[in-house]
Amino acid sequence: MSRDARFKKEAAALGYSFEGEIQIGGNYVPLIRDGNIVYVSGQIPRVENDVVVTGAAGDQTDLPRAQLGAKICIMRSLALLQRSLGSLERVKAILSISVFVQSAQHFTQQSEVADGASELLFKILGLAGAHTRTSVGVFQLPKNATVEISLVATVAEQ
Amino acid sequence: MSRDARFKKEAAALGYSFEGEIQIGGNYVPLIRDGNIVYVSGQIPRVENDVVVTGAAGDQTDLPRAQLGAKICIMRSLALLQRSLGSLERVKAILSISVFVQSAQHFTQQSEVADGASELLFKILGLAGAHTRTSVGVFQLPKNATVEISLVATVAEQ
Amino acid sequence: MSRDARFKKEAAALGYSFEGEIQIGGNYVPLIRDGNIVYVSGQIPRVENDVVVTGAAGDQTDLPRAQLGAKICIMRSLALLQRSLGSLERVKAILSISVFVQSAQHFTQQSEVADGASELLFKILGLAGAHTRTSVGVFQLPKNATVEISLVATVAEQ
Repeated sequence: MSRDARFKKEAAALGYSFEGEIQIGGNYVPLIRDGNIVYVSGQIPRVENDVVVTGAAGDQTDLPRAQLGAKICIMRSLALLQRSLGSLERVKAILSISVFVQSAQHFTQQSEVADGASELLFKILGLAGAHTRTSVGVFQLPKNATVEISLVATVAEQ
Repeated sequence: MSRDARFKKEAAALGYSFEGEIQIGGNYVPLIRDGNIVYVSGQIPRVENDVVVTGAAGDQTDLPRAQLGAKICIMRSLALLQRSLGSLERVKAILSISVFVQSAQHFTQQSEVADGASELLFKILGLAGAHTRTSVGVFQLPKNATVEISLVATVAEQ
Repeated sequence: MSRDARFKKEAAALGYSFEGEIQIGGNYVPLIRDGNIVYVSGQIPRVENDVVVTGAAGDQTDLPRAQLGAKICIMRSLALLQRSLGSLERVKAILSISVFVQSAQHFTQQSEVADGASELLFKILGLAGAHTRTSVGVFQLPKNATVEISLVATVAEQ
């Protein structure tokens, strides 16, 4: 199965569509490519006009729901890469993801939240989904989102 | 108008000078270039010896003042690039900015704070000021600063 | 003295060994190299199975202990680079470190915590240890760690 087909399958499994416009919340661009390197702006779990996973993990939001939030952030990032590159087959490597988790004071499972994102990268991209990762617990996020993820990738030469 | 002239004009509009020494607070360097990529250290809204915008956004600091803080961070970053490269005309692209906003618990306008930075990048650099962005709400920042911004850019070959 | 010898000497001074397996806490990789650029995943002050510096700086943890935590994060990052590259002599530049400090509300010495990491980079790598830096105060970190540090480096062509 191609990566693009796996992306579609995982989107269906999550029950969300990532085919509409990917809205962003300010005066910047969702993705920049320079040479073979691509930066993707921080994504929150927004589906169309709604942020669907909000509140602090460990308080208003439990671990499985925070992981769902991380998955939606990654699906949005992959959707942006897919549109920009034409196909996810052109992703060579995911160099790094940064996972910011809105956390209650004693919530220390930021890595477990990030695992939601990491597993999806491996599922969809295979070995090219291997990535380095930094997960931290922050005090707030835009629009009260539970998670925000930014990403740096490289693309294969055409 | 050249980018350097626009930089000077925006500095005058803010009422701060960025022509003195750009102080940093520790044992590291403000900027590193390797090949065509340039990393700029996290900048806080410091003007000469004083951090001029402090306290948590949404509590001690309101949105317009936090945006001013973000603008000063970007002016410092651009001043560092200008000195290192000789002119802002040599900036090819701003790949990414990371915007850390010291936030009160219920303050969720980190993106709006970051817009202060983003607008200034477009104003001064034009299309080269397009950038990806990640904005998060943190609990504290060095010297009680309201905002800290780090940046990755690429430069044109000479 | 070679960088690898200096690394060994600093490890002995800290009283910790970094020769065992470097455990990481999730479904990702500790290090990725693409061309000449290397990303290292966020490291917490873990030695074998234990996170040895925990709690919020400025509350449960004082400045010298938080600095020790930052040093352990850097030693882990350097140990990963050493294993991957064969020797620290192959590190060309440390482009950037991001230092996340779990902070009590009024703790504003994130830069001073990060100095622990910065000094060690200069001691072991010499001029190649010069780096840009971003230090922020976060609300929580994985496993209640006091510090987490991620790093981007470049390597010399072989």
